[in-house]
Amino acid sequence: MIHGHGDDLNFKGMSLRADFSSNTYYGGLPPGLTEHLQDQLPRLAHYPEPDAAELTRLLADLHNISPEQVLPGNGATALIYRLARLYTGKRSAILVPTFSEYEDACRLNNHQLTYLSRESLSTQSSLNADVIWLCNPNNPDGSLLPSVDIETLLKTRPQTMVIVDEAYEPLAFQPCSVLPLLPQYSNLVVIRSLTKAFAMPGIRLGYVVTHPKIIAQLKYFAQPWELGTMTQETGKFIAINHQSLLPDRKKLEKETNLFREQLQQLPEFAFYPTSCPFLLGRTLQGKASELKHWLQDKYSLLIRDATNFRGLDSSHFRVSLRTQKENQLLIEALKQWKA
Amino acid sequence: MIHGHGDDLNFKGMSLRADFSSNTYYGGLPPGLTEHLQDQLPRLAHYPEPDAAELTRLLADLHNISPEQVLPGNGATALIYRLARLYTGKRSAILVPTFSEYEDACRLNNHQLTYLSRESLSTQSSLNADVIWLCNPNNPDGSLLPSVDIETLLKTRPQTMVIVDEAYEPLAFQPCSVLPLLPQYSNLVVIRSLTKAFAMPGIRLGYVVTHPKIIAQLKYFAQPWELGTMTQETGKFIAINHQSLLPDRKKLEKETNLFREQLQQLPEFAFYPTSCPFLLGRTLQGKASELKHWLQDKYSLLIRDATNFRGLDSSHFRVSLRTQKENQLLIEALKQWKA
Repeated sequence: MIHGHGDDLNFKGMSLRADFSSNTYYGGLPPGLTEHLQDQLPRLAHYPEPDAAELTRLLADLHNISPEQVLPGNGATALIYRLARLYTGKRSAILVPTFSEYEDACRLNNHQLTYLSRESLSTQSSLNADVIWLCNPNNPDGSLLPSVDIETLLKTRPQTMVIVDEAYEPLAFQPCSVLPLLPQYSNLVVIRSLTKAFAMPGIRLGYVVTHPKIIAQLKYFAQPWELGTMTQETGKFIAINHQSLLPDRKKLEKETNLFREQLQQLPEFAFYPTSCPFLLGRTLQGKASELKHWLQDKYSLLIRDATNFRGLDSSHFRVSLRTQKENQLLIEALKQWKA
Repeated sequence: MIHGHGDDLNFKGMSLRADFSSNTYYGGLPPGLTEHLQDQLPRLAHYPEPDAAELTRLLADLHNISPEQVLPGNGATALIYRLARLYTGKRSAILVPTFSEYEDACRLNNHQLTYLSRESLSTQSSLNADVIWLCNPNNPDGSLLPSVDIETLLKTRPQTMVIVDEAYEPLAFQPCSVLPLLPQYSNLVVIRSLTKAFAMPGIRLGYVVTHPKIIAQLKYFAQPWELGTMTQETGKFIAINHQSLLPDRKKLEKETNLFREQLQQLPEFAFYPTSCPFLLGRTLQGKASELKHWLQDKYSLLIRDATNFRGLDSSHFRVSLRTQKENQLLIEALKQWKA
């Protein structure tokens, strides 16, 4: 799906009062990044490292693993497509509702697809899948599958590749990465993104962490200079300054809880629980698409119509935590919906 | 081939007096680009256009064609791989010696490969190829296949896709693009690069121009956000300011001719004719790899060892035109080779 992911107005120069549609961290670009990239601009006159070796080393250091276990890519999405290509024609099960690119990438590579609800996963003992795709914490609802459940999957299905997309893990209210399970399971593949927690989706940068054997397989599809200079330099800056740039999980939890409490007082809507600073909601009157356009036209506020997530219906939308002031704008606007 | 393309030292922070190894324009980044990108840095906090639609429109305007005939990509190399994937399993003929990525991309996608010398092309009436790959002007030797010869190919082989990589066309001493042939031939695919003539290989940006039907086929493999914000903004800046930023072909010709005359006076070397500001040379004593290391260690000058081009041998190297002062450094150094 090329279009329909949210954040679809900003670049068209429309003036928005606040954008709740993209589930990146509301805090804006990491301090110091703009200045750092400014300094790097003259380097555009040279070729970047063809295989992003230095960035790979820094990411490996960050997770205290070997560079042979890491592959950076041109956005987590590019790595999803690369993994789907590696497993061309296999049987894939996708836990839905979730990010639509797993499905698109699998389809493009002729996978045989099964869709499971997250709730039904534990009862699917007969599931016959070569690959399981899950996003944890999940987009669009921020739900969290406990590590112990993922470990059960890894243990009971040693022939199944379990691909865990942790794009939102650094934003989760509790650390919940399954990276500590890597040494024990050769069927675990973890996708990480540097652009959600560090609020810079304009830079495409994600990475896969897994067993060296799988990294070597993924490298079979490699092309020189996949990552440009700005992307590599951004990744290095984030990897080096990771700890100090990470958003404060506890603060995000507190603010999200407050936001959700206020949203739940609105009688026209229902909101799901979440473990991340974004929320799946439903409008009890009208459609999410109407709500989106109404908010945009009347209040210059942007939300994500979540109708196009497999398993959701026309009532669903997603909102992300913003600053307290911006959150109030949304709450006041929503109060007027169908009033 | 991930490594071995040249420009392989700059990013390692070694101090070079001059880099003759990369065949991008010596003039450095286009005036105004750095300032423009500086202004765009805050936009990294938003998603880029998922399909680079505005950039596509501007590139179409540049060539006075329809946006349905243009597909921008994450470097010309990414588009070479995409084209090779589109023609998976086909019979490909590659005119050699040339850029190694055609071969690598075809191999990855299980093409049946044939290699032709450029000289033998006209005599190959029995050639049974679904796809012909040629770089024009050619890397590494700057040789030029006249448009009329390419038109003969297109006309006599209507079932064969002719892929012409024009990465160096804006640097050629004479305009030599086959883009004017597009309306007449649906079997012509042209690859263009924005990073050679505009000296910014750190930005990955190329585009394909061809029949709308082929563009639609290539889009089948599309992923959202393939081009990040910096790449899209660079492309837009170049497309808008194209005419004023283009290097002066006549000046390049004059300077290259002068450089070549001086190089040809060196008895230890031979140089091929060229239509571009880079030259293929041979050392008559020793190996190109030794020459490269000797120049690097003794003079901090970098050349491209061209041994790894299919069809060349251990004596071949490539040098690009630099400023007159830098060119003299190389000439003075080469005078000492095996002296």
